[in-house]
Formats: sequence, structure tokens, C-alpha cells
Amino acid sequence: MIKRSGRRRGSPDTRESILDAARRLFADKGFDATTVRAIAADAGVDPAMIHHFWGTKEELFRATLQFPIDPATEIPEITAGGKDEIGVRLARTFVRIWDSPVGTTGAALIRSAMSNDWTLRLMREFLTTQILRRVVAELDLDPKEAPLRVSLVASQLAGLAMMRYIIKLEPLASLPSDQVVTLVGPTIQRYVTGSLEA
Amino acid sequence: MIKRSGRRRGSPDTRESILDAARRLFADKGFDATTVRAIAADAGVDPAMIHHFWGTKEELFRATLQFPIDPATEIPEITAGGKDEIGVRLARTFVRIWDSPVGTTGAALIRSAMSNDWTLRLMREFLTTQILRRVVAELDLDPKEAPLRVSLVASQLAGLAMMRYIIKLEPLASLPSDQVVTLVGPTIQRYVTGSLEA
Repeated sequence: MIKRSGRRRGSPDTRESILDAARRLFADKGFDATTVRAIAADAGVDPAMIHHFWGTKEELFRATLQFPIDPATEIPEITAGGKDEIGVRLARTFVRIWDSPVGTTGAALIRSAMSNDWTLRLMREFLTTQILRRVVAELDLDPKEAPLRVSLVASQLAGLAMMRYIIKLEPLASLPSDQVVTLVGPTIQRYVTGSLEA
Repeated sequence: MIKRSGRRRGSPDTRESILDAARRLFADKGFDATTVRAIAADAGVDPAMIHHFWGTKEELFRATLQFPIDPATEIPEITAGGKDEIGVRLARTFVRIWDSPVGTTGAALIRSAMSNDWTLRLMREFLTTQILRRVVAELDLDPKEAPLRVSLVASQLAGLAMMRYIIKLEPLASLPSDQVVTLVGPTIQRYVTGSLEA
């Protein structure tokens, strides 16, 4: 039996208490305004235990969603080549990850995020602070335009995930990955470097 | 009390029995292979009752999802101007509908479609047979390319719906509708009339 006291050091129960507290606080107050100390207090554990289990607040956030890749390592790899051909590079990495077994986890994650307003908020906060913010920082975009550019990129990639991997709309669902990259890459490129004016 | 016998003419119970049977058959066998007669038999009612309630098999399908707009009337309006500037016209109509109270229904529909594999199949079947097929028929696209073109359009529009209206990612969520149309219209245009080659 799993007890909900949340005090036993390192038990599955303790980890779940911490993850529950983190989910609630990240969704309610946002990532930046939530401290590890506040999560520890909410879960009734020592902050050192959180550091021991997850290392950083970023890793803890990733664990709350069981997010299948590490944005801190994946994003710098994609953005390393700069803005030229970022569209094709980003599309290629996105399709490679989603075509792999990780895609199944990704589909489950998106589907469960849709289940209620609270999980949607948590997902939006993750997307904003863990993914898009890193892309903006790495890509040296005009700070005034960057948030709109990356949210447009997110719209095309989220829709690709939905149609190719979740709804599985043909022929997009079975299209060879190279063709997907060729077709969607220029859209992403335009959102990153094209004009935002009419 | 609602009884589940499904035989009383026109009772809410009968309607629900028919809708349940239609959902199951459309998801399992597809729209084309499912006859009104088969749905009637499954629900234990006379086919005439289905025609009486919904008129056509298309309208019945729309009712199973409580789909908030009528593709049979909306799509010809969007495609009436032909392929030139279809990107901007389609984006404008999409954003107008989603910015209206109908958008709330649309968001609920997408979120509930995500809840299990069966509802996802039903949604894919609706998208394919009720929406995309009509767009292809109206737009006079090369039949070999048309399915890929419309599934790419679907990917951008679905992602826009997800980020602007469901996850509500900023600044896309608050962007004036004209700007959304200006930014996303060219993507749709390229998917409809641009090259599909590398």
C-alpha cells in the first residue's frame, strides 16, 4: 500500500508528493515565481531531497510532465547552426524525434495535456519557459519579434504532431520524413526569419 | 428516468441510441461504408426516423460530433474565389469562426477527440470525408497532389487552433485577427498552390 504521508525519505510516495506539489505550483504561479523551497514546503520535505532527486528546478519541471527529451541539451544542438536553414534543421529534428519511439510518449503527453485546463496551463508554462525561451535565447532574434516568431513555429509543429502522429491523417501520416522536412521546413524558416509585416 | 430500450419514437433516448450507433459505425467502418440502414438496424429504429431527425447521413455525422459549423455550406463559400489568395481567405474564415463563440465549442471538440483512440478515429474520419474531401472537390486540385496539400493545410490550421485557442500561447493568443491572417495565410497558400518538390 502507498501511504500519502509524504515524509519517508526517497519512497515512491515522497517523489509523487513532490511532483504533485511542483505541478500545482508551476501551473498556478508559473515556473519563474516558484522556488524549489516552496515546492519542498508544500510537499513537506527538505529542499535538499528535491536537489538530490532531480538536480535542478528545470529537471524537476521536466519530470512533472515526464517530458521525453531534454530541452536543455536538444535545443542548443538544433540552434547551433544559427538562423540560416533553421527551418529545415528544426523540422528534421522534430520529425526524427517524433518518428522514434519517443513520439508515442509525445502523443500521450499532448493528449493528456488536453484533458483539463490545469494540465493545459502546465503544458503552456513548460512550452514557454523550457522550450521557446531557450530557442529565443539561442537564436539571437530581435527581442520584440521573438515571442511571436516562436509561437508561430510552435503552431506549425504542434499541428504537424497532431495530424501526422496523433490523428494520423493520410497521406501526411505515412509520408517519408525527408518529404515532411522539405514541405514544412520553409514554413518554419519564414516564421523565424521572414517579414512579420503585411 | 431515461431508459435504454431505444424503441420509443423520437424520445431523447432514441436519438442518443442512433447517435451512439452512428459514432461506432463511422469510427469502425468509415463514413462511406456505413449506410443509414445499418445505423438504423444497429440502433433498433426505422431508417425513416434517421432521415426525419437529420435529413442526410452527412448531417447525422455532424450531429455525432456536435460539430459547430456546417461544412456543406461553409466550405463552398471559402473556396468560391478559387485558388488565388485561398490562403488568406481560408485563414480569415478560420480565425473569424474560432474568434467567435463557436471557438469554445471547437476547443472542447478537439480536446474531447483527444480523449481516446476511438474518438480520434471518428474525428479523423470526419475531417477526411466531411471537410478535406469537400475542399479538394471545390478547389480543382491535381487529384494526385490534393490529399497531401489539404493535409498540410490541416496541420497548420490545427496547430493554430491548438496554440491560439486551446493552449493560448502568447503573443499568438492575443494577436489581432488581421495579423494572424497575414502571417498564416501565406503558409496555407504555399501548401495549396506551391511546389511539393524539394
